[in-house]
Amino acid sequence: MTTERVVVIGCGFAGLAAARQLAGSPVEVALIDQHNFHTFLPFLYQVATAGLDPADVAYPVRSIFRRQPNVTFRHGRVTSVDLETRRVTLADATTIDYDHLVVGTGAAAGFFGIAGASEYTRPLYTLGDARRLRNDVLSTLEAADARPEDYDGGAPTFVVVGGGATGVETAGALMELLDVAVRQDRLRIDPVRTRVILLDAGDRLLAGFDEALGRYARETLDGRGVIVRLDQAVEEVTAGGVRLVGGEWIPAAAVVWAGGVTVEGTLAATLGVARGRGGRVTVESDLSLAGHPEVSVVGDAAAVPRGPGRPDPCPQLAQVAIQSGRHAGRQILRRKAGRRSEPFHYKDKGMMATIGRRAAVTQLPGGLVLRGSLGWLAWLGLHIVYLIGFRNRIIVLLNWWWRYVNWPGGPRLIDADVDVGGSQ
Amino acid sequence: MTTERVVVIGCGFAGLAAARQLAGSPVEVALIDQHNFHTFLPFLYQVATAGLDPADVAYPVRSIFRRQPNVTFRHGRVTSVDLETRRVTLADATTIDYDHLVVGTGAAAGFFGIAGASEYTRPLYTLGDARRLRNDVLSTLEAADARPEDYDGGAPTFVVVGGGATGVETAGALMELLDVAVRQDRLRIDPVRTRVILLDAGDRLLAGFDEALGRYARETLDGRGVIVRLDQAVEEVTAGGVRLVGGEWIPAAAVVWAGGVTVEGTLAATLGVARGRGGRVTVESDLSLAGHPEVSVVGDAAAVPRGPGRPDPCPQLAQVAIQSGRHAGRQILRRKAGRRSEPFHYKDKGMMATIGRRAAVTQLPGGLVLRGSLGWLAWLGLHIVYLIGFRNRIIVLLNWWWRYVNWPGGPRLIDADVDVGGSQ
Repeated sequence: MTTERVVVIGCGFAGLAAARQLAGSPVEVALIDQHNFHTFLPFLYQVATAGLDPADVAYPVRSIFRRQPNVTFRHGRVTSVDLETRRVTLADATTIDYDHLVVGTGAAAGFFGIAGASEYTRPLYTLGDARRLRNDVLSTLEAADARPEDYDGGAPTFVVVGGGATGVETAGALMELLDVAVRQDRLRIDPVRTRVILLDAGDRLLAGFDEALGRYARETLDGRGVIVRLDQAVEEVTAGGVRLVGGEWIPAAAVVWAGGVTVEGTLAATLGVARGRGGRVTVESDLSLAGHPEVSVVGDAAAVPRGPGRPDPCPQLAQVAIQSGRHAGRQILRRKAGRRSEPFHYKDKGMMATIGRRAAVTQLPGGLVLRGSLGWLAWLGLHIVYLIGFRNRIIVLLNWWWRYVNWPGGPRLIDADVDVGGSQ
Repeated sequence: MTTERVVVIGCGFAGLAAARQLAGSPVEVALIDQHNFHTFLPFLYQVATAGLDPADVAYPVRSIFRRQPNVTFRHGRVTSVDLETRRVTLADATTIDYDHLVVGTGAAAGFFGIAGASEYTRPLYTLGDARRLRNDVLSTLEAADARPEDYDGGAPTFVVVGGGATGVETAGALMELLDVAVRQDRLRIDPVRTRVILLDAGDRLLAGFDEALGRYARETLDGRGVIVRLDQAVEEVTAGGVRLVGGEWIPAAAVVWAGGVTVEGTLAATLGVARGRGGRVTVESDLSLAGHPEVSVVGDAAAVPRGPGRPDPCPQLAQVAIQSGRHAGRQILRRKAGRRSEPFHYKDKGMMATIGRRAAVTQLPGGLVLRGSLGWLAWLGLHIVYLIGFRNRIIVLLNWWWRYVNWPGGPRLIDADVDVGGSQ
């Protein structure tokens, strides 16, 4: 009898959790990703706003499974899955056959058909996104120092679209970066006229959270100088700024897209199976595909049910990805042992979002909420614990400590080959 | 009386030393660079071979001069200098007038007219170079793991051209990276057939060093598996490999260019003044331009004289850059005080090169040499001391410590948007 092969597509939280569940078991696990590292997505906004380095939030997949000989990594991009012949094809035309498949390919930025959004905004869903946004923001600050007259009102405006956790966190961190730029880096930009505007089409921030936390986030951002504008839908984005529904024009040096995600355009959308809102793949109660018990779809790619009789999908959170990936791994071992699969049950461990230094909101199950410094400490502790790899934890802590002491050297590098003006 | 303005072009070792010398003095210093960070060039090969992160060797210029209010930074690229009107022009067409000018624009990779070298090799002179080389090397190893049949002999070959310090250090570190890739990351590449070839056109390695150290470097590299080939001049480089003078063809997955540098193509070459070997600007004994006492050229850009009566130029080393930059800064203060300028005297502090883990060569003034572990410790200590910024030093040390314990997570990220095969 040959060893059964499990193919796991995607090394995000979901795929990683599935592979970890299977490490050491008598199956062969082939983990495939187009990046050779796992990205700790909850900290991406910190990379984008120069609080952390890219390497602080990324961890090589091979290192994670260094001591798990039954897990192998394949660097590549899967272009198609044939559910009938149980075979995946990669961009370089090689194929890998599977006995079990876990699809954890996540989502991508969703622009909802808004004109210009995909061309002229920066989403925050990959490490590359975060690096590009950081280069944009830092280059803009340098350009504003050198030639303030190039900007309307003599100073640049940064617009963040979307008032969910990513948007709130990014807007808060951008405001802190401006403070550092003026006070520590002595950039000659006007801290009053340099604006961070957070737009949301709805009537509150942090829509998934308790309403009081949404209000707290708004008040805290207000107090720190972020201009929060609710009930403002974006009509169009251009190279120069954002036009709101209604016609108002907001010039912007950079537009961050935190307006939502979609599964459209990702591998999961090509499986030819039923999908629901946001393009998420419809799965059975055990997270498998209908008619394909050997295939599970997990994490952001799937409409993960909360539990039996609770078919409303879970939000697209790291915890859901981790728990669903782990569940898929466990079911593979059950099927292999000839046992029936179990339904998935989501265990709500709460949600968190930072608003900036020493302020965060934490919503625990059962209605308990934390905010302010206490919420921030809870957020910090939990995220550090979940960060993969001891080295990264130490370095993240060191970076943070410095940042809180005096934000010195820091990772404020414009590390792409940024054009610094002129036509040459 | 208005404050005199010193313009310093370039934030390498030379420009930085000049600006530091002038910090706190009653002059206005405008420091200009196309990058917003200083790069610690001696560690670039470590970034290229995944031992250090880009941020470990780069430090934001604004942070360096955070507490020096008379030094301001301008992010931009100087396109021309008008020596008569004392004015520099930037790529964005803005101009800055100076009373004193320090040019520390360094050098660039010199390809000496070898066909294909500028297109198909990776030099190691900027942080971007190092990132690109790292992405190339790591991507090649992943591709060789997935499809060894794509390589001649079933395994990739890496070629390093140039047996000076950079070439020796890079070849040694590449060999160590292969060892990690096979033993820790479990890449399925054949460690015997995967080759690192170090080519030099001369008959020895480390030509600037004592001959015994060159022999030691060769023996150490040999012992570690690097194929050292002397008296091998390169005729042509293509996408697939290197052709030697004489016709031999060496297929190569990546070619590192450590074959030398030139001032041609840099700003210093556009000054319209006399230049010597390697395009280096000819300077007076006080490092100023003939007829322009208000302009100094320092570091790699200049043929820095060793001292009065010793016009043979210093080698292009970090120590020369630092000492010459400092000298130029001091002369500006002397001139301002109405005193005569002093001639530059180079103080030889020795030279070092690592060959890999726990092996380095150190040549001290007066003929004393260190090698092996002792040389390596001397190298490590001195370089860490010279690394700018406390934070970076700690993180570099931590990275190194981990690397020597077990080389765990490490910065082996393929962080560009690398194409992982296929036409999509």
